[in-house]
Amino acid sequence: MNTTLDTLGAAAREASFSLMNLPTREKNRILEAIAQVLEQNSAAILAANAQDLAAGRENGMADNLLDRMLLTPQRIAAMVEGVRQVAALKDPVGEVLGANTLPNGLLVSRMRVPLGVVGMIYEARPNVTVDAAALCLKAGNAVILRGSGDILHSNCCLVGLMRQAVADCGHSPDFVALVEDASRQTATDFMRLNRYLDVLIPRGGAGLIRATVENATVPVIETGTGNCHVYVDATANLDKALDILLNAKTQRTSVCNACESLLVHRDVAPAFLPRAVAALLERGVDIYGDSAFCAADPRVQPATEEDYAAEYLAMKISAKVVQDVEEAIRHIARYGTHHSDCIVSENYTNINRFLRQVDSACVYANASTRFSDGFEFGLGAEIGISTQKLHARGPMGLEALTTYKYIVLGEGQVRP
Amino acid sequence: MNTTLDTLGAAAREASFSLMNLPTREKNRILEAIAQVLEQNSAAILAANAQDLAAGRENGMADNLLDRMLLTPQRIAAMVEGVRQVAALKDPVGEVLGANTLPNGLLVSRMRVPLGVVGMIYEARPNVTVDAAALCLKAGNAVILRGSGDILHSNCCLVGLMRQAVADCGHSPDFVALVEDASRQTATDFMRLNRYLDVLIPRGGAGLIRATVENATVPVIETGTGNCHVYVDATANLDKALDILLNAKTQRTSVCNACESLLVHRDVAPAFLPRAVAALLERGVDIYGDSAFCAADPRVQPATEEDYAAEYLAMKISAKVVQDVEEAIRHIARYGTHHSDCIVSENYTNINRFLRQVDSACVYANASTRFSDGFEFGLGAEIGISTQKLHARGPMGLEALTTYKYIVLGEGQVRP
Repeated sequence: MNTTLDTLGAAAREASFSLMNLPTREKNRILEAIAQVLEQNSAAILAANAQDLAAGRENGMADNLLDRMLLTPQRIAAMVEGVRQVAALKDPVGEVLGANTLPNGLLVSRMRVPLGVVGMIYEARPNVTVDAAALCLKAGNAVILRGSGDILHSNCCLVGLMRQAVADCGHSPDFVALVEDASRQTATDFMRLNRYLDVLIPRGGAGLIRATVENATVPVIETGTGNCHVYVDATANLDKALDILLNAKTQRTSVCNACESLLVHRDVAPAFLPRAVAALLERGVDIYGDSAFCAADPRVQPATEEDYAAEYLAMKISAKVVQDVEEAIRHIARYGTHHSDCIVSENYTNINRFLRQVDSACVYANASTRFSDGFEFGLGAEIGISTQKLHARGPMGLEALTTYKYIVLGEGQVRP
Repeated sequence: MNTTLDTLGAAAREASFSLMNLPTREKNRILEAIAQVLEQNSAAILAANAQDLAAGRENGMADNLLDRMLLTPQRIAAMVEGVRQVAALKDPVGEVLGANTLPNGLLVSRMRVPLGVVGMIYEARPNVTVDAAALCLKAGNAVILRGSGDILHSNCCLVGLMRQAVADCGHSPDFVALVEDASRQTATDFMRLNRYLDVLIPRGGAGLIRATVENATVPVIETGTGNCHVYVDATANLDKALDILLNAKTQRTSVCNACESLLVHRDVAPAFLPRAVAALLERGVDIYGDSAFCAADPRVQPATEEDYAAEYLAMKISAKVVQDVEEAIRHIARYGTHHSDCIVSENYTNINRFLRQVDSACVYANASTRFSDGFEFGLGAEIGISTQKLHARGPMGLEALTTYKYIVLGEGQVRP
């Protein structure tokens, strides 16, 4: 037993009892208080962040990681704006998902309620600290945050301020808590804190997700990697296909909904390959292709099995010519990660087949995979994109932070 | 890597690709074929079952466990009838859960789809073999069954017949598969078969559930234990309270929705305790109570902390007098298992408070907790009763065996 976690967990559980029934207006008042306290204390936040950055530099941390950790007045303003946007979202709690009177007169309804206590485990991104807390609070959940030790000063400051704001509103500061012990053992204990955590959400790279799935006994919402495909069918409009391919591959490369693999029907390969290869190379994309792609341009390198399975998150793409839509579907089933995959086609039957048989969170006909996003889908927020099939799949909004309970109203009914 | 499981898993995954898109009519035809093959081969089933029973007797297995394993012509007929009932259920697959046209013209819809491959892990109950297979098939899922080694002959026979029925309908027999290796190591490997299993459902006692949660890396739907409470409020109609208490405690004791603990408001204790204690004792229920209950009858034994936390599944009950509805809610939060809890009251405010603050899958006002059941709630079937909060909570019907996917229809849209 980890006494620190036990104390944090018990306090969060206790706090969740009052939080889970707070009216929307009161939750929004707390969020506004959080926004204000962060605004008013940006100097303190920047000072704490500077300590983390100094330590990071001293430890020889890479520039892109340091940039991810860095807070600036503009970035703090964006965090504050994010909290206000969450306050403006529709509260999912209290929705009645269906009510029915049984033959015996019992009225059975299902009501959307908070999960209870959410555990977040994430990397060195201080914006996640505020974003996750705001989303959890709005959905009526207490939250325990366990960020990377690299941003401990930033997190202590941010969470301290948020707790102060909650307390100033007359509530338990334990609506939001931080695990300050950054050891690996405590991370593992946190993943097994079933007594107090209702769900664990890892946010970060593939390593963190894998470690969480491997070690957690608390139910996990897996937010996953995206090896997303664009398949160009025999009947595709090739102008649209090229637009979609370039957008999905190059509009932003470091994100899970970016295209990592191109499949082309053999009938359009002669017309499409030269255009696609030239356009990708021109934009600086390295191509790892099969023999047909290699023949199209000497700069195309031969693809390996690892290439077809890769989530590059970079200006790289794997590419292959396929016999038909069936082979494309098979290829995606074998190498894909069930995230987002697209068919570009004008053929009704092939589109239908692709949409039905590709077993991914988001399947597209004739649009860029980059739209797989909570904001783009109109959910108003995004906690992450789930690639598992339980609970929530694809972009997750506030609803993914809720569950339901059955409420049964009787007049003395007993079971015969 | 466990090669047997790897082979089974790959075959199930492959089979699931065709199964997930079978029309309802075809799935029902398969279920009817299964019903018929079981009917026509009941002699073979009984012979296989006799081998398991003989081994069980030889190993000195207890009578109640032997009875749970036992198949009879009547029990086979009930299994067959169960398969036909599943065939008659509405198919949840294909339901569109909402569709929306975004400002950019993309049509985004959410469609209910099968989970893919379901792993079932359960004890020595051959009826679960057929029941689980039928439910999984109806929801479009391939299923891999891992039952107790004690019923291996029965399971080999039942699964062999079901596979034959599926093949006779012109489909892959791998829609249904059995893990024949009953070793503990294989059970653990099965719980970690993430590559092929989308979900793992344990059905059985607390030990099996705990081992699954502890060892699984595949997402688990936890079907849990029930320490269910009946709270008799100050304003309760005491006749109704007594009916509900006796029904919830004694109508059937071995089930998770049976009452295990009685809480009584101190204002009605003088009037209710003598009646409740006498009625419970008369029916042979052992009472483990606080001092007030002990004072009511010398046969009441003092309750320990373990009693308040116990799921007896027997003619036993813990009992306590509380100060008010708040203390009842606290007591349930501390000792309960988030399954089913009931308030008996005529007071609107107290009922509301109880319904909101008790964090259980099913909360009742003035009705027996014994109604927490998929059939009673009108779901048409029951895979189990979930006491976790992710994915499905409370009684689970066919919908709990499905997920959804986003289908996005565009005309060449790219992200700006």
